[in-house]
Amino acid sequence: MNEFDLIHRLTRNLPANQALVSGAGDDCAVLDLGLGDRYVLFKTDAVVEGIHFKTDTPPQKIGHKALARCLSDVAAMAGTPTAALITLGLPPNFDPTTVESIYEGISALARRYETAIAGGETTTNPERIFISVALLGTVAKNKCVHRSGARPGDAIFVSGELGGSLSGKHLEFEPRLREAQWLADAFPPTSMIDLSDGLAGDLRHILTASGVGAELLSDSIPISRAAKLHARVESSAKPPLLAALTDGEDFELLFTIPSSNAVAVLDKWKKQFPGLRLTCIGRITAARGLKLRDKGGLREIGLRGYEHFTKPEQS
Amino acid sequence: MNEFDLIHRLTRNLPANQALVSGAGDDCAVLDLGLGDRYVLFKTDAVVEGIHFKTDTPPQKIGHKALARCLSDVAAMAGTPTAALITLGLPPNFDPTTVESIYEGISALARRYETAIAGGETTTNPERIFISVALLGTVAKNKCVHRSGARPGDAIFVSGELGGSLSGKHLEFEPRLREAQWLADAFPPTSMIDLSDGLAGDLRHILTASGVGAELLSDSIPISRAAKLHARVESSAKPPLLAALTDGEDFELLFTIPSSNAVAVLDKWKKQFPGLRLTCIGRITAARGLKLRDKGGLREIGLRGYEHFTKPEQS
Repeated sequence: MNEFDLIHRLTRNLPANQALVSGAGDDCAVLDLGLGDRYVLFKTDAVVEGIHFKTDTPPQKIGHKALARCLSDVAAMAGTPTAALITLGLPPNFDPTTVESIYEGISALARRYETAIAGGETTTNPERIFISVALLGTVAKNKCVHRSGARPGDAIFVSGELGGSLSGKHLEFEPRLREAQWLADAFPPTSMIDLSDGLAGDLRHILTASGVGAELLSDSIPISRAAKLHARVESSAKPPLLAALTDGEDFELLFTIPSSNAVAVLDKWKKQFPGLRLTCIGRITAARGLKLRDKGGLREIGLRGYEHFTKPEQS
Repeated sequence: MNEFDLIHRLTRNLPANQALVSGAGDDCAVLDLGLGDRYVLFKTDAVVEGIHFKTDTPPQKIGHKALARCLSDVAAMAGTPTAALITLGLPPNFDPTTVESIYEGISALARRYETAIAGGETTTNPERIFISVALLGTVAKNKCVHRSGARPGDAIFVSGELGGSLSGKHLEFEPRLREAQWLADAFPPTSMIDLSDGLAGDLRHILTASGVGAELLSDSIPISRAAKLHARVESSAKPPLLAALTDGEDFELLFTIPSSNAVAVLDKWKKQFPGLRLTCIGRITAARGLKLRDKGGLREIGLRGYEHFTKPEQS
């Protein structure tokens, strides 16, 4: 049973109440606590030694990544972070200096986004460091962007460049909070998600939640230098396009907007965020499924993106 | 370096912002999100296999304990829980039925206190189950009880009976949410905490936060049947009084109220909660330190409660 099957099984019949606007199935849980025209966003995310970082990863970067993942989820709903709590599971022989450095990485990022670190706790996890971050934020009710609003005809956009994140970016990425808030004001997305599982996987979350399909343009997908370099120097590496579709941990914004706004958003984004690429990579279709258009025609990207893509069915 | 030293070192200079009313150093972090006359309470707490429960602990009880610990912290500030997120670290060979049963234990308790389970995530923790719960609640600003308000002359009360929790109660305890809310309305405590580290340790948290001392009456401390039984059948066990002072995981309420209300609260509590004992165990003093009065006179309970108590300095 994989993570998604398990989560589906666990979240079928969870207790709800009047405050819960939406729970599992979006980047953050959304709560209405009676805060006037704002919702509260609520998110937890964990990083584990040997899984999400290595034993020799610089501890500031571990802390940065732990908080940045949660901030990226708040960004995906166009929210503003407020406060975080840090849960640290530590082996009994932990080095206090390492733990302080993890906190420095967390704190430096928190200060940049005016997020309070409201405390937390330490406990024992004998074999490895386990860090769980809980984050609270808020968002104006009429600016909150869900995964479920994509409509046929919408243009699909992605920020930055994709693939090869494990060569470094996954420890240093900047959560796209400012970009997402600007979008929600200037060109409200119909749907948005942050890229953690890879473009193909995360776009599928939007398609499922919205009940639509998509067609991506192979040539337009922005491939990172890291993914290209990796494919060049290592013969067993994924082809760069496949890396961009499936590597994961990009932590860029993937969103849809009505196609009538497509040219304007590209133009204004370039002026607003000259250092960060924005690319239109395809469009939402009424027909279900995720397809990729290239010189050979239109190919289905199957449910298990990787396998099906390397052995595509011709359409 | 122990947990308290580390937390002190980590929490000296954390990022704050205007929303943060109080962070580390109370049972929950307190946030003012602009919710009229209410604060938001924010808490995380983790339980780890082999530390807080055994591999053969019934999974429903694991789930119950994981959520109940957080609810107990919201109770300690006289708050009302709203929503929780569950982070599950699981070994790769986890049994889905076990995980579902953990969620059943969480959900049954959540329903009892109208708390939404707003989602969460699963990740890999190869060697053992690690469960971190993040909880949001609210509390009326004028009813929120901190650790820092105890004043000389206040009477000290504790709910329930103490010691021996590990023989079963730590997996089944009921968070004292209703009792705490009733207190906050009827006899507002000047300070309150939930008993997780043991009476001596947790009372010391109140004394430190309030800048006061305390004198406990040895004969009045309510000792659980489990602690007495344990001392009788196992020669190496702590004496029952020491167990009640230091065992931990009682998850009862420890609070102070002005002594003028002491008789009235005992009287009204008995009518309100006939199944749950309430005991006055001593009083707050201007002189710092934690002292225990018994037939032999007044003895200091040292910083390392256990050792000093077994070799008391006569006063």
